[in-house]
Amino acid sequence: MTQAKDLSHLLSVEANSRKASPLKSAFVYYGKPGMTFLGGGLPLADYFPIEKIQATIPKAPFEEGIGGNISEKGFTDIEVLKRKQEGDDSHIELARSLQYGYTEGHTEIMDFVKEHTKIVHKVPYEDWDVIATAGNTEAWDSILRTFTTRGETILVEDHSFSSALETVNALGVNTFPIPMDAEGILPDKLSDLLDNWVGPKPKLLYTIPTGQNPTGSSLSTERRKKVYELACKHDFIIIEDEPYYFLQMETYTTDKEARKGKAVHNHEEFLKAMIPSFISMDVEGRVIRLDSFSKVLAPGLRFGWFVGQKNLLERLVRLHEVSIQNPSGLTQSITNALLSSWKQEGYLEWLIKIREEYTHKRDVAIDAINEFCPKDIVSCLPPVAGMFFTVHFDASKHPKFKELNEEPLNIEKSIYEQSLKQGCLMIPGSWFKAEGNSVPPQTGILENPETKNMIFFRGTYAAVPLEELAKGLEKFGKAVKIEFGV
Amino acid sequence: MTQAKDLSHLLSVEANSRKASPLKSAFVYYGKPGMTFLGGGLPLADYFPIEKIQATIPKAPFEEGIGGNISEKGFTDIEVLKRKQEGDDSHIELARSLQYGYTEGHTEIMDFVKEHTKIVHKVPYEDWDVIATAGNTEAWDSILRTFTTRGETILVEDHSFSSALETVNALGVNTFPIPMDAEGILPDKLSDLLDNWVGPKPKLLYTIPTGQNPTGSSLSTERRKKVYELACKHDFIIIEDEPYYFLQMETYTTDKEARKGKAVHNHEEFLKAMIPSFISMDVEGRVIRLDSFSKVLAPGLRFGWFVGQKNLLERLVRLHEVSIQNPSGLTQSITNALLSSWKQEGYLEWLIKIREEYTHKRDVAIDAINEFCPKDIVSCLPPVAGMFFTVHFDASKHPKFKELNEEPLNIEKSIYEQSLKQGCLMIPGSWFKAEGNSVPPQTGILENPETKNMIFFRGTYAAVPLEELAKGLEKFGKAVKIEFGV
Repeated sequence: MTQAKDLSHLLSVEANSRKASPLKSAFVYYGKPGMTFLGGGLPLADYFPIEKIQATIPKAPFEEGIGGNISEKGFTDIEVLKRKQEGDDSHIELARSLQYGYTEGHTEIMDFVKEHTKIVHKVPYEDWDVIATAGNTEAWDSILRTFTTRGETILVEDHSFSSALETVNALGVNTFPIPMDAEGILPDKLSDLLDNWVGPKPKLLYTIPTGQNPTGSSLSTERRKKVYELACKHDFIIIEDEPYYFLQMETYTTDKEARKGKAVHNHEEFLKAMIPSFISMDVEGRVIRLDSFSKVLAPGLRFGWFVGQKNLLERLVRLHEVSIQNPSGLTQSITNALLSSWKQEGYLEWLIKIREEYTHKRDVAIDAINEFCPKDIVSCLPPVAGMFFTVHFDASKHPKFKELNEEPLNIEKSIYEQSLKQGCLMIPGSWFKAEGNSVPPQTGILENPETKNMIFFRGTYAAVPLEELAKGLEKFGKAVKIEFGV
Repeated sequence: MTQAKDLSHLLSVEANSRKASPLKSAFVYYGKPGMTFLGGGLPLADYFPIEKIQATIPKAPFEEGIGGNISEKGFTDIEVLKRKQEGDDSHIELARSLQYGYTEGHTEIMDFVKEHTKIVHKVPYEDWDVIATAGNTEAWDSILRTFTTRGETILVEDHSFSSALETVNALGVNTFPIPMDAEGILPDKLSDLLDNWVGPKPKLLYTIPTGQNPTGSSLSTERRKKVYELACKHDFIIIEDEPYYFLQMETYTTDKEARKGKAVHNHEEFLKAMIPSFISMDVEGRVIRLDSFSKVLAPGLRFGWFVGQKNLLERLVRLHEVSIQNPSGLTQSITNALLSSWKQEGYLEWLIKIREEYTHKRDVAIDAINEFCPKDIVSCLPPVAGMFFTVHFDASKHPKFKELNEEPLNIEKSIYEQSLKQGCLMIPGSWFKAEGNSVPPQTGILENPETKNMIFFRGTYAAVPLEELAKGLEKFGKAVKIEFGV
């Protein structure tokens, strides 16, 4: 196994100026026999007003499924105590989780997460680690503060999560859009861009490679390899924001019989079916993975983790010490108790069930699009991961294209409004366009006359019950037919 | 009641460039009858793997006290369900708290916190509000990002919480130290400073007015009023970081009989005994209060709140949307269930009990200092609030003062090391010194020949059991005697 490269030259001004607190040097005396430690302002755990927590959770291996309508025997109870019994090693007792400290996350849950990361990603260098975050939104903000300084430029997908882009913009960092097609980043275009780059090279690439938001695209293994090679060649860090990684699904087929036989049958098949992550091919330690329980357990936990090389994670810990400190202790204690009850196998089982659920939701959505949207006008590539699908239009085929100044955005607006009128809301693709704060000279490379009239809408099959989903898409189809006069 | 002043000219470059997400405009259609909303990537609550949480908590009004050794009937159980029963208005159901959204904090718990703020602080202008934070550390970081830009200068107490100062330093913002005495900020010195200020005026003052960290000082009502007037005159914002506000105690007395009769007897007396906060005198809306459950319930909740004028809080919400999003949903649901069970009166009762506990701890510490430390060498003003006490020395009285180059820091180091040798750790005061990144011309005003040889150590009575506390201070006293040759 290799060691991670020294990438400290990519740190921001802010990250470089962070010092460890001098108080840390005193804390080496904490708990030392014979030492009365009057150094830290910690309240006594005696006063923490929670003695015990019990939670009712689905019981692995989830034989009745994971959604609603589970009978009583499908559940089990977990318990977290203020002070654990001796020998109970997997317990994060409340006396500890409700106290200060442990910025990296509590050992028990971080060990679980690290073991899980090994099973799934097999990180190919030695000195990697995991540390806790308050979810990927917070993690992304902390990454930007750690690697970028006002005025610098980063690479992003040409359409990306608008909230993530807004985070960058407010920090005064430029977002340079990389061309994508329906399958994500185009590595050859990225290569051209970087070879012809003018000015200081970008320090990082922000990508949502699996089930991308908003396009629903998933980057192939081959493209990932090429992008990783470019990162090594041009010395940038890849931030893979992967909340949807475990929402990978079976390939879509219109053959409803064939659907039945296609689920993965065991853990090995499940793991093998996963697209390899960037971190799994990271021999140099230049990928930081943002991972989270938000999409597979619950967003409100506000718990996620970085995977990356230890030296870079250390800078993020210094930042967390003076910002979030650590994710909620209740979240850590309860989530840890849940995962300890499920064990690694139970958690994989849960993820397999999630895969089945999302495959079915996706199928219902794509079936509805095929049924209700005119095929010669709407194109839709069934997603293989994530919560989102997109429907694409050639704006020049719209009857009012000339009248509306041959401006695709005017057509997008017209369809959006018609769709609202019919009672279905999908988000216009242009709302996710990465524009950046400044246009570097290399922008010419981004122009593509073939796709300049293409517009799209983003929809989700995640958030609505299935009947409503199909009904909504029927209304959207009606709006499209009205707009295009068919 | 007055309206808050427009203080938007005090916002940072970062805060000014934050835009609300365009997706927000779509969310007005969420839940509209007849509208199929395919706009947001929210997982279905059906998949959240927690059905129910039960927690065992102390039962108000805490007749058996709040520390250890409470009998079974001193506890009660609270419950949080995934989907609440109809009519149960005080319940933050898990289907909601574990979902995305609600950056301001969930209505139920924020209503409680706002009502509590009204009872305690009676904020004297109309358009104030409260919004959730992930605790005061996070809150302070967000304040800095919202009001300061690299290169600017803020005012801080000349000794302050080292971690809070480190947050400022890493952002490239200068900290200008305001002279203090044993009772906190010296308003006349501050007034001189500001009248003679060279360059752009500071935009904010960071203060821990009650039970200050590290000095243990508490600013009197009179001084607070003067500081507030200066804020109005010189147009800066006061950030009052008040985690220790409810650790206000009875005045120290050596008369052990007199101690028994002094506790506050009811809620009215308790509230009357509180030092008025800056927010309670804020007619212009230029105070932002950082409040937190960390010291009165538990730090690991990672839950606090801002109190301030709505227009400024709006900018902080925009930042939270792209950073922490919101405090953990489990924290919000469980803390809300606890507070709903206690009600406002029960919570005040809890705070009164905390006051009693800390008064007793402080008494034990000061008694021990009086007993074990030579009075002609050590001076100690018994604190009236907080977790910390300080012991002060005149370094020039140390036998090695000349030998150690008449440098007080060398004496501090010598005492620190002797104390460690004897088995007691207290933190050297110089570790908390606010130095700033640059020295403005007005620094001359800070020199005070009377106090230049004074050094101090910070200790806490919060974190250790009482017997150990007294024993530790005995060891410290021994170290002092050895050092000063008495």
